[in-house]
Amino acid sequence: MFSDMDTFILTIKCPDRVGIVAAVSKFLADYGGWITEAHHHSDPASGWFFMRQEIRADSLPFSLESFRKKFADIATRFALQWRISESCRPKRVVILASRLDHCLSDIFQRYRSGEYNIEIPCVISNHPQLAEICSWHNTPFHHVAIKANRRQQAFEKIASLLDQAHVDVIVLARYMQIIPPSLCKKYSNQIINIHHGFLPSFSGPKPYHQAFHQGVKIVGATCHYVTEALDAGPIIDQDVVRVSHNHSIDHMVRLGQDIERLVLARGLRYHLEDRILVHENKTIVFN
Amino acid sequence: MFSDMDTFILTIKCPDRVGIVAAVSKFLADYGGWITEAHHHSDPASGWFFMRQEIRADSLPFSLESFRKKFADIATRFALQWRISESCRPKRVVILASRLDHCLSDIFQRYRSGEYNIEIPCVISNHPQLAEICSWHNTPFHHVAIKANRRQQAFEKIASLLDQAHVDVIVLARYMQIIPPSLCKKYSNQIINIHHGFLPSFSGPKPYHQAFHQGVKIVGATCHYVTEALDAGPIIDQDVVRVSHNHSIDHMVRLGQDIERLVLARGLRYHLEDRILVHENKTIVFN
Amino acid sequence: MFSDMDTFILTIKCPDRVGIVAAVSKFLADYGGWITEAHHHSDPASGWFFMRQEIRADSLPFSLESFRKKFADIATRFALQWRISESCRPKRVVILASRLDHCLSDIFQRYRSGEYNIEIPCVISNHPQLAEICSWHNTPFHHVAIKANRRQQAFEKIASLLDQAHVDVIVLARYMQIIPPSLCKKYSNQIINIHHGFLPSFSGPKPYHQAFHQGVKIVGATCHYVTEALDAGPIIDQDVVRVSHNHSIDHMVRLGQDIERLVLARGLRYHLEDRILVHENKTIVFN
Amino acid sequence: MFSDMDTFILTIKCPDRVGIVAAVSKFLADYGGWITEAHHHSDPASGWFFMRQEIRADSLPFSLESFRKKFADIATRFALQWRISESCRPKRVVILASRLDHCLSDIFQRYRSGEYNIEIPCVISNHPQLAEICSWHNTPFHHVAIKANRRQQAFEKIASLLDQAHVDVIVLARYMQIIPPSLCKKYSNQIINIHHGFLPSFSGPKPYHQAFHQGVKIVGATCHYVTEALDAGPIIDQDVVRVSHNHSIDHMVRLGQDIERLVLARGLRYHLEDRILVHENKTIVFN
Repeated sequence: MFSDMDTFILTIKCPDRVGIVAAVSKFLADYGGWITEAHHHSDPASGWFFMRQEIRADSLPFSLESFRKKFADIATRFALQWRISESCRPKRVVILASRLDHCLSDIFQRYRSGEYNIEIPCVISNHPQLAEICSWHNTPFHHVAIKANRRQQAFEKIASLLDQAHVDVIVLARYMQIIPPSLCKKYSNQIINIHHGFLPSFSGPKPYHQAFHQGVKIVGATCHYVTEALDAGPIIDQDVVRVSHNHSIDHMVRLGQDIERLVLARGLRYHLEDRILVHENKTIVFN
Repeated sequence: MFSDMDTFILTIKCPDRVGIVAAVSKFLADYGGWITEAHHHSDPASGWFFMRQEIRADSLPFSLESFRKKFADIATRFALQWRISESCRPKRVVILASRLDHCLSDIFQRYRSGEYNIEIPCVISNHPQLAEICSWHNTPFHHVAIKANRRQQAFEKIASLLDQAHVDVIVLARYMQIIPPSLCKKYSNQIINIHHGFLPSFSGPKPYHQAFHQGVKIVGATCHYVTEALDAGPIIDQDVVRVSHNHSIDHMVRLGQDIERLVLARGLRYHLEDRILVHENKTIVFN
Repeated sequence: MFSDMDTFILTIKCPDRVGIVAAVSKFLADYGGWITEAHHHSDPASGWFFMRQEIRADSLPFSLESFRKKFADIATRFALQWRISESCRPKRVVILASRLDHCLSDIFQRYRSGEYNIEIPCVISNHPQLAEICSWHNTPFHHVAIKANRRQQAFEKIASLLDQAHVDVIVLARYMQIIPPSLCKKYSNQIINIHHGFLPSFSGPKPYHQAFHQGVKIVGATCHYVTEALDAGPIIDQDVVRVSHNHSIDHMVRLGQDIERLVLARGLRYHLEDRILVHENKTIVFN
Repeated sequence: MFSDMDTFILTIKCPDRVGIVAAVSKFLADYGGWITEAHHHSDPASGWFFMRQEIRADSLPFSLESFRKKFADIATRFALQWRISESCRPKRVVILASRLDHCLSDIFQRYRSGEYNIEIPCVISNHPQLAEICSWHNTPFHHVAIKANRRQQAFEKIASLLDQAHVDVIVLARYMQIIPPSLCKKYSNQIINIHHGFLPSFSGPKPYHQAFHQGVKIVGATCHYVTEALDAGPIIDQDVVRVSHNHSIDHMVRLGQDIERLVLARGLRYHLEDRILVHENKTIVFN
């Protein structure tokens, strides 16, 4: 049924107390579970505990469904908030983009080469330019224009496309549009944005222009979950690149794009592998 | 008179136009000037031109004083703002610090080992703790307490100590006090601060606390000239270090201190070697 | 004739002596040449001097051809080795690849988005897999298999394809084949390779395996010109990424590929913009 | 007896099998052990398992001695190689240095500021220059000259000083002498060296000279345990800094020293906090 590469991924968060690890690891050991990767984190500031266990699926005598049932006892006892997933099931990723293709192109390359175990039901854009690159990858492309006086209808259309796609993850690959609160709520911790600035510096539009005028010596990019607060959701990953007086705004944009695609690629990978737990607008990333 | 290591350092800024480099380099060539390092920068955004030339002192048939007189013609013709200095003259550096010694200690080490060609007329602190490390280095230490209702008198005392020291550069090595406008003006582009945050993020007090609560994945430090606007003077250099959910505020502080001493050491070196030109609240750093 | 974005790029190397900069900058100033970017480098170790000047084409009263004739005098007087090129003429880039497409894909994206001013006459591979991505970009694809006993014929075929392509630059985008000495000589300083290791560590095959078994904490990639000495030509650029005991060889390969595409993209850009001078198996990169 | 900051640190390695974590965490939970930090690593390449647990000392009803006795059962059952230590006991660090003081100075600063919980019984050098900095810190200084024909006697003297010091860790802070095999064996995984090159590149003497002549674009430093094989012991940490054609060998040395002190400081901290496990000439660093 399972190959020796397939794993179950169990993630847990709960108020910290003695005995959680013992209970969970005893449960796994009793059924012969072979743990391939384990991460724990106790946060003394909040008093919470976080855990991610990756277990070889073929080492357990039961399916994901049975796991869920059998684990319920422990979960109740320790007031666990928990999820379990199968690494072999590809996640369904819908990408929202605008005109720039450097992030989209990069995701398609990782999809094509098998680096990501995903399906891409469709790409949605408010401009028509990315239709061709989608057709190369046999991926449906939806052009949903965002006009000032018809934003609501546009996002209703997008909501309906997301529904039909049975989407697991939404990636804003330089989408440049503000997502309405209803979608932020519905897909909480499922919408990943790449911001072309080193948050919390330079939120909002034209971050490279802001950076240039401040004369900073380093610019960056930030991958984060989207919440109703603009550019203020939980940060997943960041990276930076050194700049100098030699760099015009155009140079900064170009250098920044190299970082954007990289940070988004990493952040998306952490999400796809269930490595991210969110707590109080911050992330725990077990990588 | 000069050793073959001694150089004159000529720095220039002016509105850009054709012929500046030709005129300056012809002047140097006519006197046999041997250029060991040359940097140019044309900024299309402001329309200004910047230049730094380092010339072997023993290749020129005259002293710094004569250079100044002979160069005046070109300077007037091209409306140059310019300075020239001798690498062999040690700059006089006064260090202001508080209780933490990681930056002060690092500067003393570079001074002692000859990495910096400087004199340290004195160290000034609002706390007594750093007296001992100064006595090890035979450096006068002045304890000038800063009390809420006697700030003015304290800074008058400091101003007088700076005067007596014939100071060229003032280093705020985690001084943690706001410098009064009068001193900012008097020592414009001569006061170097290390801020323990990645400006313009996290200006003001407790930047690591701010960074922790924002959940950023990278923290940094910023070396800048001090102006009347708090933590907003021209940025000289910055650097960063990666953090994660594993890092408490204390960890961040500790990691940050490693970056602070490094960024301050670099920024100070650029200043000591006359590598920095300031224009419109930004720096050109020729390194 | 020229737009205000077009430039002439003049690069020079010669034994260092007084007066070179004065002569070159006087020549440019006499004809009204507007220098947009200038870099100089004196190397005391070798006694050589290097220079790159970028001049607005529309500021000079003559064409590239006339520039070449008029500049000959100075060039002879100072024994200059020099080149001049026009930024508006796209360079012709032939890409050699194998089966992996991360570098090829990245170059195509930069070509498509206009980041690189290039033409791609064709792609050559010893495997058929990359035909599709080339067809998407309307780029001729040549499958030239490399068989152990027919290497010579294969490279004769490749040499002939390069000839027909009027190639300016050859990029080995993870080509994984050793280029014969005749081609290395013919295209000296025109063949750019990306090596998936931090040279001079880990030259030759399977660098990530070598790195894993050594237990290094940082892996890297190196972009260099190809010479007859395997993985030992002049280094153009390098970059690194941190790894740990958590990283299997597969993880290292994946992280390394992120660096490979970035370093190759940068190195190629420096070459396309005539920013690289080679001297004694080392590069001067004016960026 | 214990403050709420004091911890026991348990490190374990053993062939991987199901049930280890369950057994260890049940043992800790049964006695009410409050785990503040936990790290696991399964290495599929070697089939070994590694673990580090940090437990609040005041949460356990017994001393370190009792812990050792009670834990012996599990240790035998799972064939564990294990150690346990108390965070409150300062480790005894002897520093061997030569003439350069940048690393020694940095360690003294961290010691003085309380960043490291250590004692420094003495400093040993083959040159007299560092006596003064040691006297500032009230640390005994031993000048043991290393003469070509009397190396053996010198190292016998050093061995005896180490013995008397009841040393836990020996730091080679740019000591520049080869440690004899007898000491390497006696203090296996207890001698930490900082090598001023990015190993395995540039082992042996004058790594910056080697790097300069190779024309690399990045130089580095490596912190590793000392074994009989020169510069080839298990790597603890590395870091790098970018260089260019602008950097002479002297510049590289200066930039490199900034990295050396940082990498040594980090590597030493990992060791002091019992974060390093060694297996087959590689390290697992739980940080």
